[in-house]
Amino acid sequence: MSSPETAELPASPGAHFLAEIRGQPPALAGLLEHEAAYARVAAIARDRGATTVRMVGHGSSDNAASYGVYAFGLLPRWTALRDSITLTVYYDTALDMSGSTVIGLSQSGRTPDVIEYVRRTRRAGAFTVALTNDVGSDLAGEAEAVLPLAAGPEQSIAATKTYVNQVAALALLAAYAAGEGRRFARGLRVVVEQLEELIPELERQVPAIALPFASVGRMFVIGRGTEFGTAREIALKLLETCRVAAEPLTATDLAHGPVAALDPLFPVWTIASADETLPAVVEAAARVRAAGGTLVASGTAAGALEDAAYTLPVPTPPEPLLSPLLSVVPGQLFARALAAAKGLDPDRPNGLSKVTLAR
Amino acid sequence: MSSPETAELPASPGAHFLAEIRGQPPALAGLLEHEAAYARVAAIARDRGATTVRMVGHGSSDNAASYGVYAFGLLPRWTALRDSITLTVYYDTALDMSGSTVIGLSQSGRTPDVIEYVRRTRRAGAFTVALTNDVGSDLAGEAEAVLPLAAGPEQSIAATKTYVNQVAALALLAAYAAGEGRRFARGLRVVVEQLEELIPELERQVPAIALPFASVGRMFVIGRGTEFGTAREIALKLLETCRVAAEPLTATDLAHGPVAALDPLFPVWTIASADETLPAVVEAAARVRAAGGTLVASGTAAGALEDAAYTLPVPTPPEPLLSPLLSVVPGQLFARALAAAKGLDPDRPNGLSKVTLAR
Repeated sequence: MSSPETAELPASPGAHFLAEIRGQPPALAGLLEHEAAYARVAAIARDRGATTVRMVGHGSSDNAASYGVYAFGLLPRWTALRDSITLTVYYDTALDMSGSTVIGLSQSGRTPDVIEYVRRTRRAGAFTVALTNDVGSDLAGEAEAVLPLAAGPEQSIAATKTYVNQVAALALLAAYAAGEGRRFARGLRVVVEQLEELIPELERQVPAIALPFASVGRMFVIGRGTEFGTAREIALKLLETCRVAAEPLTATDLAHGPVAALDPLFPVWTIASADETLPAVVEAAARVRAAGGTLVASGTAAGALEDAAYTLPVPTPPEPLLSPLLSVVPGQLFARALAAAKGLDPDRPNGLSKVTLAR
Repeated sequence: MSSPETAELPASPGAHFLAEIRGQPPALAGLLEHEAAYARVAAIARDRGATTVRMVGHGSSDNAASYGVYAFGLLPRWTALRDSITLTVYYDTALDMSGSTVIGLSQSGRTPDVIEYVRRTRRAGAFTVALTNDVGSDLAGEAEAVLPLAAGPEQSIAATKTYVNQVAALALLAAYAAGEGRRFARGLRVVVEQLEELIPELERQVPAIALPFASVGRMFVIGRGTEFGTAREIALKLLETCRVAAEPLTATDLAHGPVAALDPLFPVWTIASADETLPAVVEAAARVRAAGGTLVASGTAAGALEDAAYTLPVPTPPEPLLSPLLSVVPGQLFARALAAAKGLDPDRPNGLSKVTLAR
């Protein structure tokens, strides 16, 4: 392990992870410098009538795509889906791609099957867009348009600022497609400031909350609608940095089976947002408590969940659709604190590398 | 607990669950009696150009919809998606529904938000289809067309024959949409016979394999492409009947984070099918072994996974697309045997009821 990259690793476990969580406000501000590119790509998609949005990516990128379903649905009212890479790339199925905008999400721009998916769908007539940190990558080369993620180099294997910028990028693109781009860009600037205040505050609160979870092996993470992607992303952080079998569920999923597995040693992290999904999330939280599960309440409406053992609220952003940019942060910092409590190094999870070339 | 329904429960724990697993071959044969209805509905969808398929359902129904993405993609080459109920029903977002076939999946036909989704999308111009065991249900009443699931009454809370018939129903509908309905109906008749042989054989094999898992609290279930729905369904059975925190993953998902959580006490159930996804699944299995995880190999190509601690192969059906009808059965019977080993009653999971009215 003496390559130049690993030699640069700081001594303290999780130092990169923490530095990158703290680096989210400037990373988000950096994305906003490319606002004009987002406006331009949205205009092309609209002009071409490419209003079915097919998003592809793995891991955190796929979690951001879960958010994209709602951003495109709620803003331009376009149908957006996390498309099956397998269908196009492995089964070699030619679907009708006219009327489709394809968004390939990859931090590095080097994910092989995402590149191949973009290559094939472009040939089939889709408007293809690469959303990546590396505008010189193979993915960028295959796509018709490139949107810079502009999160800066990410050294921790567990993505944080890349994820937040992906969510913001999808929100900004969807907002421009709906003719509301400028308002959302202003909203994102406010979120930068909210993140600047929120992060140090959570850093103080979270370690005491994470400590009692040191012996926990499994968790559910519940979110709905715009926050389902957040639930997926927090669960992934817990899996990869803390080795907790954390499964993301919608509020309704929980009632359809998984509730049967709950007991007092099976905590549930719940993201409650002040929107139309709140009653369902409140109901799910009540089921968790009835089953004896320990409840962590987070999100802009964390206070609405009674009986929570721990509460980690986040501020309300100017647009409700932007709350996932804030509500993911308690999960990131909790994962960091829990990894520390368990003696794990979140910068070097077992068996993972930063660029995943797996099929 | 003295209602007439519970009074009829047989004394032996899991008796309904087992009887319904055994009842899958006749249930599937029963579905095929309605072949003409499937042909008719497929013809309407084709004639209307309603080639975007939006499937909605919860729990096992949603798992069947994961399969539907591939059935419609591979056969008529239509884009099919598990649509967001939240977007339409809770956020009240009016998406363009012209050109869409909506399939509402509900065993009972009584799932409130599925009914509401069908009502709203029908009003917005979608061709709406109810796929349900109860052709007199509210769901059937709201939809323009009704497809009988014909699985017969299901008394166990954990769905088995309903799931298999949902998968078969989506395959049959997709095949008729592609002009290949008759061939697939013949294939399904062969699967009925294969299930008749497979079930008693697995009943003999599975208990000895389940026993060493009695102290396991968490598992991953890996499947890809057409078998991803199977992975989701097996994970759900393990959660609801055995209280195991079982998470479904695609082969690629595993490499993007979750692999970091593996250790020798974290077994992985893998479904390997003899199709284009096999190399990715073989690679994922190798990662599991490298991390020290115990591997259970299942599916039509179970033998391709070297180093598996346990192997539960299933026969190859006449059409590769039909293999999920067979590959789910080892998981169902494993769940039943594991529940027995843990002293749990799969007919009465904690906190669940047969018809879920949760939001």
